Amino acid sequence: MTLRQDNPSLEDSLIARYFQPLATDPGAFALGDDAAILSADGADIVVTTDAIVEGVHFLPNDPPDSVARKALRVNLSDLAAKGATPAGFVLTLALRQAEASWLEPFARALGEDASAFACPLLGGDTVATSGPLMISVTAFGRVPAGRMVRRCGARVGDRVVVTGTIGDAALGLDVLKRGAAAAVLSSDPAAQAALVARYRVPQPRNALAAALRDHAHAAMDVSDGLAGDLAKLCAESLVSASIDLVSLPLSVPATTLLACGVIGFDLLLSGGDDYEVLCTIPEQRLQAFAAEAKQAGVVVTAIGTVMAGTAAPRFIDAQGRQIALQRLSYSHF
Amino acid sequence: MTLRQDNPSLEDSLIARYFQPLATDPGAFALGDDAAILSADGADIVVTTDAIVEGVHFLPNDPPDSVARKALRVNLSDLAAKGATPAGFVLTLALRQAEASWLEPFARALGEDASAFACPLLGGDTVATSGPLMISVTAFGRVPAGRMVRRCGARVGDRVVVTGTIGDAALGLDVLKRGAAAAVLSSDPAAQAALVARYRVPQPRNALAAALRDHAHAAMDVSDGLAGDLAKLCAESLVSASIDLVSLPLSVPATTLLACGVIGFDLLLSGGDDYEVLCTIPEQRLQAFAAEAKQAGVVVTAIGTVMAGTAAPRFIDAQGRQIALQRLSYSHF
Repeated sequence: MTLRQDNPSLEDSLIARYFQPLATDPGAFALGDDAAILSADGADIVVTTDAIVEGVHFLPNDPPDSVARKALRVNLSDLAAKGATPAGFVLTLALRQAEASWLEPFARALGEDASAFACPLLGGDTVATSGPLMISVTAFGRVPAGRMVRRCGARVGDRVVVTGTIGDAALGLDVLKRGAAAAVLSSDPAAQAALVARYRVPQPRNALAAALRDHAHAAMDVSDGLAGDLAKLCAESLVSASIDLVSLPLSVPATTLLACGVIGFDLLLSGGDDYEVLCTIPEQRLQAFAAEAKQAGVVVTAIGTVMAGTAAPRFIDAQGRQIALQRLSYSHF
Repeated sequence: MTLRQDNPSLEDSLIARYFQPLATDPGAFALGDDAAILSADGADIVVTTDAIVEGVHFLPNDPPDSVARKALRVNLSDLAAKGATPAGFVLTLALRQAEASWLEPFARALGEDASAFACPLLGGDTVATSGPLMISVTAFGRVPAGRMVRRCGARVGDRVVVTGTIGDAALGLDVLKRGAAAAVLSSDPAAQAALVARYRVPQPRNALAAALRDHAHAAMDVSDGLAGDLAKLCAESLVSASIDLVSLPLSVPATTLLACGVIGFDLLLSGGDDYEVLCTIPEQRLQAFAAEAKQAGVVVTAIGTVMAGTAAPRFIDAQGRQIALQRLSYSHF
């Protein structure tokens, strides 16, 4: 491993300069070996991997610091949903060229997040590509043995709970693409900026990991749209669910856009990039879970109930009607 | 994680069909969760990550089965050099499109290697790219606590040892690019095929891991050319080395090409893609190491000696002259 570069002049010095400072864990050997050591410390190691690609998961003109944060945070979000404490990560960077003007802010932001989330760089690989930039991260966490929160544990009667607000990242992408949301919000640059920030820099809910371990029957992070991800959780748990759209936690701009008919629930429920936690909590634990979440500074909202059966989850509007979704989630191909 | 695809129709079924059978470890949850569990079993977890890119590490018309094997094996080679026993891997696949005609042989070969090397698929991510194919693997191994073989342990007087033969992969690439080697070997298709196979499908020396743990002071795998990799090992160990080129283990075609002056030592020493193990063994352990290697079916050859100082390693020819290398290793940028 090591963030190896094969031209010992330019690239090695860039790597040494920008990435060695991030390799703070003794097991990373300052990126000076082929591999890193990850100590389990008696825990289970939780492993997750997610890549982001220019033009698919971030835009070509997104600033390098937000690209770095997104690359790490989409993985931290998985660790959070599984109830795991971050332990470190490895990085594959596919670049068209090794430019200090891009690498410097990228590595600085990555280091800030690695430090903030206590998830040090353990190693990586840089490769050349003629195509879009790609950043692949494999992140590691620790959970007490046997305590990873699975997708498959939801039980009939559980409340369906989400963190934060849903749909803002999809609206942020719409703003960046100068879609309908951008037009309506043209006089509100602060709202536009807030939505764009949700798209560019996820806020992973790692502060909630312990509460999820203690109370959730099932959990996953919402990365591809709430509708599709809830369908996956239900399928793994062999259950269905009913969601009350009136309970769906929405930001002020999302509420405004929905109220004036510029967008429908489709975009909010299938837009992706939320990086919130979706979980199911037994009714009798909901109060304790909410209290621990509040303590952790994370807003949680019960939006529905786990139902018997294997039908696709139903989404019920304020008039009690089931709405039909055009699509469940975002497709990369 | 999971090898997720967001269009639940085509891609999910391809992933389920081709990759789920590879997720044989219970900790992979049949790719049905966001993350996998890796049990340390009281060992240190060794983590390594290496990516291969179309046009850089493999050729656009390389068959998908050899691409799969190379992607995994370059990582298995790192685990071998560190003395680690393979424990599993995660995969990021960046594809232009999800084609069954490519994915089927790719996944089948990957599964065969995962099984042969006891290194099951734990999870992954598939993403779309408009650029070259890229396969990033993060592989995990186990070593008894504190026993990973480092780059930095070489001591003055140690013998420098390599496995297998050096330079064949570089010659294989030359054959594929119809270079000088191809012209000279035009009447020997078997030799050409053997060299091409060395380029396309590395033979990682995992059978040697225990012997390396028991006897090597330092080790790494030779991926970017022996000259450059030896320089890195020496730099990490704060030593130098002297290599007797007459001892360098060469295949028959390499010997032929060298003898008739078509190639020089440069290409063999800096061509890259060898995926042999380079290690330093104390003199008094060399015999025991060689015996264990033979038992493991791996040919090992002492090619020189670790020297005091921090000068670049010297390469001495049959006449006792130090040869000058044009470059140490292959550059991706």
